[in-house]
Amino acid sequence: MNITKNHLKRLKSLTQKKYRDENQQFLVEGIRLVEEAIDSDFELVEAVYTKELEEHVAGPNLLQKVRTKTSEVSEISDTELNSLTDTVTSQGIAVVLRRKMFDPEVMFQPNGAASVLVAFDSVADPGNAGTMIRTCDWFGVDGILMGNNSVELYNPKVVRSTAGGVFHLPIAENVDLRTAVTKCKELGYRVYVTDLQGETHFDKVTYEQKSLIIFGNEAWGVSDQLKDLADVRVLIRRYGAVESLNVSVACGVVLSNLHKLF
Amino acid sequence: MNITKNHLKRLKSLTQKKYRDENQQFLVEGIRLVEEAIDSDFELVEAVYTKELEEHVAGPNLLQKVRTKTSEVSEISDTELNSLTDTVTSQGIAVVLRRKMFDPEVMFQPNGAASVLVAFDSVADPGNAGTMIRTCDWFGVDGILMGNNSVELYNPKVVRSTAGGVFHLPIAENVDLRTAVTKCKELGYRVYVTDLQGETHFDKVTYEQKSLIIFGNEAWGVSDQLKDLADVRVLIRRYGAVESLNVSVACGVVLSNLHKLF
Repeated sequence: MNITKNHLKRLKSLTQKKYRDENQQFLVEGIRLVEEAIDSDFELVEAVYTKELEEHVAGPNLLQKVRTKTSEVSEISDTELNSLTDTVTSQGIAVVLRRKMFDPEVMFQPNGAASVLVAFDSVADPGNAGTMIRTCDWFGVDGILMGNNSVELYNPKVVRSTAGGVFHLPIAENVDLRTAVTKCKELGYRVYVTDLQGETHFDKVTYEQKSLIIFGNEAWGVSDQLKDLADVRVLIRRYGAVESLNVSVACGVVLSNLHKLF
Repeated sequence: MNITKNHLKRLKSLTQKKYRDENQQFLVEGIRLVEEAIDSDFELVEAVYTKELEEHVAGPNLLQKVRTKTSEVSEISDTELNSLTDTVTSQGIAVVLRRKMFDPEVMFQPNGAASVLVAFDSVADPGNAGTMIRTCDWFGVDGILMGNNSVELYNPKVVRSTAGGVFHLPIAENVDLRTAVTKCKELGYRVYVTDLQGETHFDKVTYEQKSLIIFGNEAWGVSDQLKDLADVRVLIRRYGAVESLNVSVACGVVLSNLHKLF
C-alpha cells in the first residue's frame, strides 16, 4: 500500500505540537522504541516503513508484529520517512500512537499503600525531561506529574530520551503542581524538593512509603511556592567549582537512594 | 574594528573539528561561559561581539574585561555571529581560545597523595560527555582521561554542556586507556568500572584515596579489555522496566558517593 500526499502531510503534521494536541497522536521512530511501543498498552494507529527496515536483523520480525496490531501499514521512501523525523536513527520505521491522558488523582494512593511519585516543576529541556523519565523508571518510581510549565511529553526528543520509559509508567501532563502537592500532603505523602540551600544531604534522607519528590527548572530550580510546601529540602553538596549540576543528573543522584525503601 | 571576509571564514572554520585540530583553537559563546573562559588560565586569542551584548546586564562589563586580555576584539553583525554558532544562546559574544593539551602522566600521583581520576571509554554523545565533565567537577574529581574513541573535547556542544567544567580541571584527550589504566594500577590506584553485571552496589563501594573510575559507551558500556583491569565492578541496581540508565546519570550516581572520601 502506497501513501498519498495528503496522508504524508497528515503524518508530518505530528512533528508539531499543535497537531499532536489536535489529533491526540504522536510519532515514535526506531526499532527499539517501536518494539517497546508495540509491547505497551498504547494504541497503535498506523505504521510506515522503508526498505531499510528489512536490512536490520530485527526488522522483518518487527514488521510482522506491527501488522498483527494494525492494518494501516504503508511502505514509504527514505525521503518521506526523513521528513517525519529529526534524527538519522529511524532505522526505517515510524509509528503513530494515540496519546494517553493520565489523571494525577488516579496515581495518588489514598490509603496505606506504598507510592513514590516524582514531579517535574518547569523542566524545560526535552533531553533532560526524557532522561529524567528514563531515570524514574529505572529506580522504580510509580508515576510522574509533569507541571504545566514543563516541556511537552510527546515531543519526539522527550520520547526518544525516555528510552522506552514513556511506555512503562503513568505520566500526567499539564498538572497544576500546587494543587497536586497539597492534595498529596492531605493523603499522607511526604514531600521532598532538591535545593542548593537544602539542609538534608541526599544520602541522609529517609524516604517514606508514600513520597513525592520534586525536581525543578534548569536555571532556577524548584519554585518558592512548591519549596514552601516541602517537608524535606534535599541538598547535593558541591566539592568543585562548577555552579550547578544538570537536573537529570541531580534526579539520578536523589532517586538512587530510593532503593533503601525497597 | 570591523571584520574581513577572510577573517570571518577563519573563525567559521573553527566550527569544524579538522580546523580546531589544525589551529589548536576552539570557540566559546555565551556570557556565562565566556566569563568562565576569561577567568581561567586558557589563552584568549580573540573575541567577537554584536550590539546584542550591550543589552545584557553583564554585557558591557564583560566586554571591558575581554579587552584587558586581548586587543583582538571585533564588532560583527548578528548574521555573522550566528554563522559561528549552532545555538541561539550566544547572547552577542563568542571568543576563540587556545586549546590545552594535558599529558595524562602529569595527572597521575606517584606517591601517597590523594587523587581521584575519571576515564571516559568511548563516550560518544557530546551532551553526555559535557554533562559528565560538569558532574566530575561538581563532585571534586581531580582530572579526566578521555579515551581515544571518545567524542572530541572541544566540540561546541561538549564545551557548552560542561557549564564551565572544561575550564576547571585537567582533561587529557586521545588517551590510550589500556596503557593509562595499567600505569595507574602500578602507581597504586584502585580501578572501578560501572557494569550492569557488577557485583558491588554503588552505595557499598569503598573508594580509596587513589581511585580511577571508568565510564563506558552509551550502547555497550565499558570495553571488556578495561573491565578485566578493574578491581571493582560497580552495579546500579534496576527496579523498573527500562533497559539502561543514561551514562551521565550513572556517572552522577556513582560519583555522588565519592563524598565519603572527603
